[in-house]
Order: sequence, then C-alpha cells, then structure tokens
Amino acid sequence: MRKVQVAVLGATGMIGQRFVQLLEGHPWFDIGGLFASERSDGKKLGEVNKVKDHAFMPETLSRRIEQIDAAKIAKTCRVAFSGLPSDVAKDIETKLAEAGVAVFSNAASHRMDRDVPIIIPEANSEHLEIVRAQPTFAHGGFIVTNANCSTTGMAAPLKALQDPFGLEQVMVSTYQAVSGAGYPGVPSLDILSNVVPYIKNEEEKMEEEAAKILGTYHLGQIHDAEFQVLASCARVPVHDGHLEALVVKTRSNPSAEDCVRAMREFRAEPQRLELPSAPKVPIIVRDEPDRPQPLWDVNAGEPARAKGMAVTVGRVRKKDKYVKFFLLSHNTIRGGAGGSVINAELAHAKGMLK
Amino acid sequence: MRKVQVAVLGATGMIGQRFVQLLEGHPWFDIGGLFASERSDGKKLGEVNKVKDHAFMPETLSRRIEQIDAAKIAKTCRVAFSGLPSDVAKDIETKLAEAGVAVFSNAASHRMDRDVPIIIPEANSEHLEIVRAQPTFAHGGFIVTNANCSTTGMAAPLKALQDPFGLEQVMVSTYQAVSGAGYPGVPSLDILSNVVPYIKNEEEKMEEEAAKILGTYHLGQIHDAEFQVLASCARVPVHDGHLEALVVKTRSNPSAEDCVRAMREFRAEPQRLELPSAPKVPIIVRDEPDRPQPLWDVNAGEPARAKGMAVTVGRVRKKDKYVKFFLLSHNTIRGGAGGSVINAELAHAKGMLK
Amino acid sequence: MRKVQVAVLGATGMIGQRFVQLLEGHPWFDIGGLFASERSDGKKLGEVNKVKDHAFMPETLSRRIEQIDAAKIAKTCRVAFSGLPSDVAKDIETKLAEAGVAVFSNAASHRMDRDVPIIIPEANSEHLEIVRAQPTFAHGGFIVTNANCSTTGMAAPLKALQDPFGLEQVMVSTYQAVSGAGYPGVPSLDILSNVVPYIKNEEEKMEEEAAKILGTYHLGQIHDAEFQVLASCARVPVHDGHLEALVVKTRSNPSAEDCVRAMREFRAEPQRLELPSAPKVPIIVRDEPDRPQPLWDVNAGEPARAKGMAVTVGRVRKKDKYVKFFLLSHNTIRGGAGGSVINAELAHAKGMLK
Amino acid sequence: MRKVQVAVLGATGMIGQRFVQLLEGHPWFDIGGLFASERSDGKKLGEVNKVKDHAFMPETLSRRIEQIDAAKIAKTCRVAFSGLPSDVAKDIETKLAEAGVAVFSNAASHRMDRDVPIIIPEANSEHLEIVRAQPTFAHGGFIVTNANCSTTGMAAPLKALQDPFGLEQVMVSTYQAVSGAGYPGVPSLDILSNVVPYIKNEEEKMEEEAAKILGTYHLGQIHDAEFQVLASCARVPVHDGHLEALVVKTRSNPSAEDCVRAMREFRAEPQRLELPSAPKVPIIVRDEPDRPQPLWDVNAGEPARAKGMAVTVGRVRKKDKYVKFFLLSHNTIRGGAGGSVINAELAHAKGMLK
Repeated sequence: MRKVQVAVLGATGMIGQRFVQLLEGHPWFDIGGLFASERSDGKKLGEVNKVKDHAFMPETLSRRIEQIDAAKIAKTCRVAFSGLPSDVAKDIETKLAEAGVAVFSNAASHRMDRDVPIIIPEANSEHLEIVRAQPTFAHGGFIVTNANCSTTGMAAPLKALQDPFGLEQVMVSTYQAVSGAGYPGVPSLDILSNVVPYIKNEEEKMEEEAAKILGTYHLGQIHDAEFQVLASCARVPVHDGHLEALVVKTRSNPSAEDCVRAMREFRAEPQRLELPSAPKVPIIVRDEPDRPQPLWDVNAGEPARAKGMAVTVGRVRKKDKYVKFFLLSHNTIRGGAGGSVINAELAHAKGMLK
Repeated sequence: MRKVQVAVLGATGMIGQRFVQLLEGHPWFDIGGLFASERSDGKKLGEVNKVKDHAFMPETLSRRIEQIDAAKIAKTCRVAFSGLPSDVAKDIETKLAEAGVAVFSNAASHRMDRDVPIIIPEANSEHLEIVRAQPTFAHGGFIVTNANCSTTGMAAPLKALQDPFGLEQVMVSTYQAVSGAGYPGVPSLDILSNVVPYIKNEEEKMEEEAAKILGTYHLGQIHDAEFQVLASCARVPVHDGHLEALVVKTRSNPSAEDCVRAMREFRAEPQRLELPSAPKVPIIVRDEPDRPQPLWDVNAGEPARAKGMAVTVGRVRKKDKYVKFFLLSHNTIRGGAGGSVINAELAHAKGMLK
Repeated sequence: MRKVQVAVLGATGMIGQRFVQLLEGHPWFDIGGLFASERSDGKKLGEVNKVKDHAFMPETLSRRIEQIDAAKIAKTCRVAFSGLPSDVAKDIETKLAEAGVAVFSNAASHRMDRDVPIIIPEANSEHLEIVRAQPTFAHGGFIVTNANCSTTGMAAPLKALQDPFGLEQVMVSTYQAVSGAGYPGVPSLDILSNVVPYIKNEEEKMEEEAAKILGTYHLGQIHDAEFQVLASCARVPVHDGHLEALVVKTRSNPSAEDCVRAMREFRAEPQRLELPSAPKVPIIVRDEPDRPQPLWDVNAGEPARAKGMAVTVGRVRKKDKYVKFFLLSHNTIRGGAGGSVINAELAHAKGMLK
Repeated sequence: MRKVQVAVLGATGMIGQRFVQLLEGHPWFDIGGLFASERSDGKKLGEVNKVKDHAFMPETLSRRIEQIDAAKIAKTCRVAFSGLPSDVAKDIETKLAEAGVAVFSNAASHRMDRDVPIIIPEANSEHLEIVRAQPTFAHGGFIVTNANCSTTGMAAPLKALQDPFGLEQVMVSTYQAVSGAGYPGVPSLDILSNVVPYIKNEEEKMEEEAAKILGTYHLGQIHDAEFQVLASCARVPVHDGHLEALVVKTRSNPSAEDCVRAMREFRAEPQRLELPSAPKVPIIVRDEPDRPQPLWDVNAGEPARAKGMAVTVGRVRKKDKYVKFFLLSHNTIRGGAGGSVINAELAHAKGMLK
C-alpha cells in the first residue's frame, strides 16, 4: 500500500513539530513537505527545533521548511496537518480544502463552522460524516478540526459517563501546562513559582466545544448536547500535560465504582478500527490516591505510537449526587498534533482519503 | 497599657515562625517565650530559621527555644499561639486551657469540637461567644481555632455573598502553595514542573469547616450553614499563596457587578474594631483580566501590619445562575499564623484576655 | 534643598521600573518624567507594570509615560536614568549629554568609551573624574555607566581583596536570574527545570569590564587592571539575584580568615559619604555553610533605601593558593537601576549636578 | 549463555530503582533479587516506585523487596549492585565481598580504599586490575566503585584532553539536579526559584576522586594524577542532569578546534568491547551556542541501552592558555546506576564474573 503524502503546516512551531514527531515512521502517512510562513523559508527543521523531549531522526532534522503555497501543496499532498496560529489558519485552510486537500487542523478558526466537525474519535467519530456537506468535498477537499487542548482531555471521560448515566452539569478547573501557549509563549518571569488564572478565550472554548463534540449527529446536522459546562482555566509552571479537576452531575446516580468501571472499560471506534495512534486503553483509571500527575502520566498510552494519546483519570470519588475526579492528557499530543493525526487515521479508515 | 504576654508553640516550624514574625513589634502582644518539642530545647531561633522572605530582628534571632511545659507556660503567658502539628497539638492545647491559658490554634485537632469555634473574624466574629461554654473558661482558659488555610481564603468572600444573596452551592478547586505542607514538606522531585492532585483530608476539611464557619450562632450553639461544598484540592509549585477557583450558586440571582460590589464594599468586625492586624479592605477585588496571582497578590493588605491578611479576588464573571471567580490568600499568614493572631486581637478587644 | 529633577528612560521595561521604584521618596531626586518609545506614549505606568514584588504608590501608578525627546527632557530634567535597550540607548544618551543632561545609564553602549567611566562606587569612585574629559561636560552634560549585572556583583568583593592582597586571576561561573533578560525575556519552556549555559556577550562583558573598573585612574586616564578573568555564564530558573562562584588567585597568600576580614570590614566612598542608597555594610559575609542564596539574600542591605544594594558573600574557603567563595547580588537593583542611582548620588555629592 | 544473576541493594531508593530500570531486559544480567532495609521487607517495587520518567514492566513492578542478608544473597547472586546510602553501605558491601559476591557500588564508602578502584571505564578501565589485590578476590568477591555523580561527568572529557595535551589545572563549577540528593531529598521550599551553593562533601569528592581516576595504574598501584582541581558545587531546580562549567589548563596549548576534535573522536575500552551499556559516541560535542542543557541532553547516548550514558559537551572556547567548556551528564544514570552497570559489564567482558 502506498503511503498517503501529507503536508505539515506551521512546522516552526511547537504543534507543527509535534506533528512531525508523530509522523516519523507512520505506517499510513508520509511527510510530503514542511511548511511555514515566509520568514522560515529554506531553514532546516533542525535549526528551529523546539521539541526537547524527542530526538528527531537525522534525516528529519535536515528537511527544509518551505513557504506555504496552497496550490503547490495540493499538487503533492492529499492531506495537510495544520499547526498554524488561528489568525492565519482560517484562509489557508479554506484555500487548501478548495484545492482538494483534506485538512486536519489544530487551529480554532473553523471549529464552530456548521459543517466542520470537531472530532475526538473516542467521543464522536460519527460526526465525521458531516464533512460530506462541505462544498469542497466533492473534489476531495474538506476540513476536520480537533478540539482545544483542554476540551480534548475531558471528551472521552465525559463520553464514557454520558452513555450510561447521562450528563447534566460539568464543572471543570484546569491546571494547564506552558506548552499550551506555544513558543516563546509564557515568559518565565510570569510563571516561575506562580499561577496565572487566565487564558484568553479558553473557558469559552471549553464550554461551547464540549457541547458540540458530545452532541448528536442526526440527519446531517450536529445537535449540541444539553448539559451545562462551567470552566475555570489557569496556567501552572508545568512543561507538558493539562490536569483538570472535574465535578460532574449525571442524570442517573451511579456509584464511584460504577463511574470507574464505565471509564476503565470504555472502548470506542479508534480501538475497534485499531487506528495506528489509538491507545488500546483510551482512559487509564489509576487507583493510587495521588494520581494523575503530569510528571508520571503525561505520556500514558500504549502501544508506542499511542504514547501521550491516552487520558489518565484518578481520584474518582462521590459527593452527594456529584462524581468528582481529576484527569490528565498531553496537551500538545492528544490535545494537539496527535488529535489531528488520529482524526486523519479515522478518515483514512473510512475511505475518505482516496 | 501593659502588653499581653504570649507563648509561641511550634517555634521551629513554618507556622510557628510566621507567628514570631507577626508578633515582632505587635502593639498589644509581647512574646513571652518560644516553645517546641524536646529536640530543639535550647536552640536559638536563628539556628532553625525557615522564613526566607522576612528579616527577623537580631534580638528575635537570638531568642532561645524551650521545651513545651504547660504549667510553666501558664505561669508567664496569658495566651498561647499554637503552630504545633495536629497530632501533638490536641493534648497540649487541652492542658494549656485547663491551666488557664487562652489558646489560639492553627492545628486542626479541636476545630470540630462542639464548644470550640473556628473563627475567621470577617465571617463569624459572633461565634467567639461559644468559648464561654468551655469548662475551662471560668478560670480564663479556652481554645479558639482558625480554619484550614484553604477554607480561610474563601471564608470572607463567601460571607460577603451569603449576606445579601444567600448561598446554595460552592464548587472550589485549589492551587495550593508548597509552604502549606510545612518544612521539609513537599520534596522538590515531586513538584518541580508538576502538580499533585491530592492533599490528605484537605477536601474534607474545606467541606465541613466552611459549613461550620458560615453557620449561625444561636442560643449558645453553632448551626451549620446548609449550602453544599464540593472541593478539589491540588498542590502546585508555588512558594506561598493559595489560589482558588470558585463557582458559586447563590439563592438570589445577582449580576457579576452586584457580586463585585458586595465583596469590594464588605467590611466586618475586625475593620470596625480596627484590630491591629485587620486589613482596612478585607477583600481586594481586582479588575485586571489575569489576577489574582501568587507573585503579585500574596502579600496584599494594608496597613503594614496587615500585609498578607487581605484576600484578593478577580475575574468575577457570571455564567447562567452561577458566579465564578478566583481568589488568593496567603496560606501561612492569613491562612495560618495571622489568622490566629487576629483571633486573639478580637478576643482581646472583647475583653476576654483579662 | 530643592530636589534634582530626573527623567527615567525605558519606563516600560524591568530596569526602568526598578528606577521608578528606587526613586519613590528619594531624598535628593524627584521624578520629572517617565519616558519610553513611541509605542507606549500616553500609557500609565500602572498599565505596563512588571514589578511584582514592590507595591508602587497610587500616584506613581497613574503617572503617564511620554515619548522620548532629548530636547524636551533637557528643559525639565538635570539627570536622566537610562534603562533603555543598548541598541537604542547609544544615540539617545549621546544627544541628552549634548543637551546638557547628566546621563546615568544601565545600557552597555558607552561602557567601553575611553572617556566614559563604568562606576561601582564601592570599587572605583575616583574614576568619576574622567567625565570632565567628555566634550559635553562644560555645558553640564555627561555620561556615566554602571556595569553589567554580573560584573557588578563581584566588583566590591574583588576590590576588597585587591587592595590588601593583589589580584592575579579570577575564575567566575554565574547562576543568573531570568529577570536579567528583561521582559518577556526567557521563555518558560526554555528554563523550567533547566539551565541554559549561554548568555550572549555576557562572558566578554565580565572579562573586559572588570579590568576597567578595577583599573587605576591616573593623569586623566583609566589603566586596565592586569589580572586575568575567566568567566562562564549560565541562566537558571530563579526570579531575581545573580549567584556567582569565584575562584581567585591573589598576589600574596592570605588565609580564608584574612579574606573574610578584608571583605567584611570593607568600607568605601559611598559609606563615607553616606549616600542615601549606600548600604552601611556593602559586603555581608555569612558564616552559614549554605549561603548566599537568592531566596534568602537577594534583598540584603540596610537601611531600607539600600535594600538589594549589598553584596552577600559566603563559603569563603582556601584551596592551595586560591580563595574560593560564592557571592550574590540583586541583578536589577544593585546590578541594574540601583547601580545608576548610587552613581548619581555620588555625582551629586561631588557637586557635579549643579 | 546463561545470564549472570544480580542483586539490587537499596531498591527503594532513586539509584536502586535506576539499577532496576537499566537491568530490565539486560542481555547479560538477570535480576536475582531486590533488597533494602528491614523497613521495606515484603513490599512490591510498584508500591515504592520513585522513577517517574520510565515505565517499568508490570512483572518488575510486582517484584517483592527483601531484607538484605549477605549470606542469602551470596547463595543466589554472583553480583550485587549497591545503591545503598554510604553509612550503611560500608559493612554490607564488605560482607558481600567476603561472601564471594562481586559488588559494584554507587556508594562513596570504599572509593578511597587503596585496593578499590573508582572505575569510569572510558577513563581508566585498566584500574580494574587492582581488585585482584583485594583479599576476597581469590574466592570471587571484590568491590568496584563508580565515582561521585559530579566527578563522573567530567571524567571522560578530561581523559580525552589529558591523553594528547596533558592536564595542569581544572576549575569546575556545578549546576546539580535535585535527584542527586535522592528521595525525598531537597525540600521544594528550599529550591523553587533558588540555588543552594552547597552540597556536603561534594567539592572534596570531586577534587580527590578525579586525581585517583585519572591517575596511572602501575605495578599494582594507582598513582594519583598531579593536576589541580578546584571545585564549586551548587544545587539548582532541575530534575535530572548535572551541568558543569569547566576551565581547564592543559600542558600543551591546543586550539579550541583541537580540543573539540580530541573529545569528539574519543573512544575507549567500552566502545572497543562493545559493552551493552556503552554509548557508541561517549562524548557528544555540540556546535550550537547554547548547549548542553539538561532538558535537551540529559538522555544523550545511543543505542537505546546507552540512553543517558553519553556526556554532552558544548561551548568549547579558548581564553589565553585555558580551554573553557560546559558539559552535562545524567547524574542518576551515567553518574549513578549506569556507571556501576557498565563497570560490571567491563568486569564480565574481562572474565572476572565467572
């Protein structure tokens, strides 16, 4: 089987480089080109490398970055992974779809478009169908987004509770890593021995994206889920891994053990399809009293290609009608580049990348 | 006016030394002795100093620490401030009260005793009356506790909302500083670039103490308040200052502006009595989008003697029927030693230390 | 006595704001205006405040920042304190001197000019005379620089050893705080749980500035000192305070005790003149085995106005013919704004600001 | 080939668990037992796991820890790896050697014994011969130590310079990770946003161990090398990886390029013997201006089994007759457990473990 050629957009940034990391040795995809703004045209990836915890292969480090040109990309690549900043992503992604490219984007620009799905395949793989309604689909072009990094973490656990118990209310407070702000991102003077209780638009994104992702797909439309989300977002001095404290009111009244079992045994489309980046166990529930923690759990997920793709849950406990727990997911892998890679794998498995 | 002689118990620990810091130059109290376990008997404070951000006076640093002996303390000191660990505090505090000493304790041991109040004087100064029911009171001895450091931070803001709007539900997630665990406390290997989502018994304390503190005092009894508290507690790599994300459901439905005004204009007994450690403005509400932060706001409070005694609130916003905000307070001053010092000032102003 | 009107240049930056902090309530100087680039024209200081550990007075926070205009500044201000970036400082400082303003600069641009002294008044107050050779001096304008923040820390201790024992060789390794890079400065992704062993031009500055500062002033010229300096500079995840490990070979062979005494008893021109920002004890030598440390010692210096102006030395020990010790100084106060403020005080005391 | 059975002593500690990590799947060695003090007898490794960045195999996590008993260990294990604290290591290691066990120790207790070598096989593999002089050797028992973690980092680079250029003087300042102090080790209150310029006995160890390691083995004796070492040691808020700033005076006067070449092309006995844990390139010299850094380089070394076993060198530059550079090595792998594992591999390759 010939591999699908893919372009990486935003290859000088943190998310773009996580795409490259996850695509090294990918069984289905082959990096057809690295792209970024004019400023970096001609530079080698190794000259602008920002990923400190992964050793790229020498041939990857010596690849050159080219200036983005939708028409040129469309000639060689069937897929584009977009790690672009939201302000520039909007137009470029639209142009690529028009040129017949399947775009899997980490940018927020198109997430709330009616015919663009936000896919977390453990939670809503069936929403992918809506791309058929995109005007460019007939010629092979379409846009699929992944969710905001904070929304992503809670999607699978909430889905695992929603199915058996129903959801009424979700209160979530975040402890977000600095890598979520990209590079250079958060100045060290602002965050050493400090917490910043504000991330622009983050709470709004969590509140509206969760309703869309966990909504139902029916007759060609996504209908938002009706539970309430109340989010409080803060930045902490942690490299990678968004931790979240959840307090969830379900419609029925399961015990803590019921909730643990529902999350621990949860499997979904990526596991059934055995997508290359799908973790065998998508939600890892820990029994220790003090987990999950970024240092221990950020790279959870097996097999090797799913490292950083599982969500770790811990401290599941009940108080009155509420179930409380903490969860952790890798914000630039599961909540960033990895989220789009698994979306592309899903599309490929569904025959949409022919 | 002769100053009241006071003993500091636990003078080798973080809280004990914050007591010493706050008592230097106090207008009403005079340090009559420093006390700790046998192990430190005879050591100078300067040899075991753990407070890095305050320069003690040379004469303070050269004071010697003595082994705790209730009878001996009772001979020279009218008041004892207890910064003892909870396991040893229980008996010693009881003995001191029996010996006629007024004990103001930061330990948890007696907090839930029926006739012992947890006083945050901005929230419930009237609860102090209950000490008259303690069997030792007739001879001048009694025990008053301050709240857990995390409960303390939210007490005044909740009181400021409870009075005009009523409280139905409080969801709180904490971002707690390492100094809350004392010294040596949290190992650096566990917390550098990490968050630990577990602090033993902390959530339980927040949930039960809040109900007692904001309860009503009637006919010699404290009746717990009836709102629900759902707490999630985590430790972050911050030196000092507990940040908390609150989501509060009130009985009436005030606007965000109403809530800001209620907290900003809130004044209580310590302000009316002009207690030496009372901040003129007990709740500082900030308008910036990204406050409060530990680095900026931990030492909030005026005048100089009230540094670290004010609570800073920010990001007050409304979502449906819920008001959301962040708050910050100094966990070893307002939420530790300072909490007991202001309690003793209140008792003194009420004539209970004669 | 009427206070001298002074301008602060670069008032939006970290050093500029430390100037403002140190000039609040200054007995000799009065802030005549805050200046920065066009971009910040009209903004209030409070809107761009970056100093988290000092509470500016409300009237300071509401002062407006104006665009730099040398002619206009010269009309109202006798002195300009420059916290400008080196690339823009050069021309502006020259113009101000030409316009008759006495410029005290933290920028590197003019430090190695032949007729511009680098003054650390504890080490070389007599070098100030060289400004009389500047062509603008006749009309009252001149430029005085302070040293690089890392050079500053070691100047007084080296001087204290140089006088009695002579200097042959100085090996110095630095542990520099992130505030030394200004704001936004060092990205948190680069420095959390990390050390960066490179600060552009820093080693070169330390090596050449030390020779100039500790050189001799003779017949209107500064003759470089002849000891060798070998510097290694690194950035560590610390807010404020540059720590330095020194290994010094002196010409004679004093004992460790001799060296301690020489540094501890060292007093110089600022102490004799009782300059307002001069610490009574310029070099604080600690006997504890584990000092100096940024958290404990960064703000060393008495009286209150000299907070952060003393250098703390510790672990003075001998190995063969070498004396080894660690030192710490506040990089944005003693090694930044405070260095220029004390230089201006020296010039004022010498009658140069009439 | 049957694998050699090995015991791990100190299996509840950081170094002990690094031994276990490095021995999982080892081609020559098989873990015969995990041992620690009485306190942990019967516990599973998973219950006391402190290694956050390596996922042990499930069967490893469920292994039980036994109380140390030299006679019992000798019955089943040919080799013992000791990660014991120095105070308890001394006697136990002696007893094990007497019982015929080959002990490879990370503890300092026996390092300066005349007939015990400190082996860094890249620097002094020939010193291993001296164990034949140990009285227990005839019955198969002997003791080999690795060096202190800070000494280890500089051993190979110094050897690479010593051979062609000769060594006269080594000035070294360290930036040491908190994992070097074990667990719980450094309290977070002491090191967040701070540097501690003191590690007990560390400078002495670096100074005396370096002379022994780089000394010559002749006629059954080790003769110390004669260059001077001047060390300054400090702890920084970094998880893993000791960074060191070196200033070295060689006997001849090579250029910076000569030094780079000597280090980059350096190969030694472990490479020639292709020991399983030997990095193919023992000294990685980086050309970037700002390397090595803990976050980037701590795990340097190929192939996979040699991860964390290479030393990374950068910023090689010349000043007068001195060559200056920074180096980094993993303090609990290369400078801890890995150092002893490679020593055992060397002994095995030399036929000493039969």
